[in-house]
Amino acid sequence: MKARVTVMLKTGVLDPQGEAVRHALGTLGFSGVTGVRQGKVIELDLDASDRAKAEADVKAMCEKLLANTVIESYRVEIL
Amino acid sequence: MKARVTVMLKTGVLDPQGEAVRHALGTLGFSGVTGVRQGKVIELDLDASDRAKAEADVKAMCEKLLANTVIESYRVEIL
Repeated sequence: MKARVTVMLKTGVLDPQGEAVRHALGTLGFSGVTGVRQGKVIELDLDASDRAKAEADVKAMCEKLLANTVIESYRVEIL
Repeated sequence: MKARVTVMLKTGVLDPQGEAVRHALGTLGFSGVTGVRQGKVIELDLDASDRAKAEADVKAMCEKLLANTVIESYRVEIL
């Protein structure tokens, strides 16, 4: 079973990486980019068979390791 | 208009970050994680109105800046 976790900074949290990308895109001539937010995507191969248990496990992984829940939000997809 | 770019290492390219996460998950007691791949997700706010042009522009951004196409593959979604 495969799971995909998307971790993004919470709205309102300054994203210096995103700002740097936006600035660089402007320098490269890509006008019209009004905002950039960058996050992580983590694809996990799980040898689980029960979808609900897999989702609960992945959420626990996010809470413990994959996301800094103070400033980041995460989304779990079981594929 | 919003676009989402997902950048992942190409299959076969060693992912040390993913290995580190897999190891850490094991240490935290999450057995059953057989593989981890980590990539980037970039959300762009575009003041474009034409979807096709926006998609073409974002692909050009990926080729020039957002992805290292030698070792990474990217996927563009216009939201």
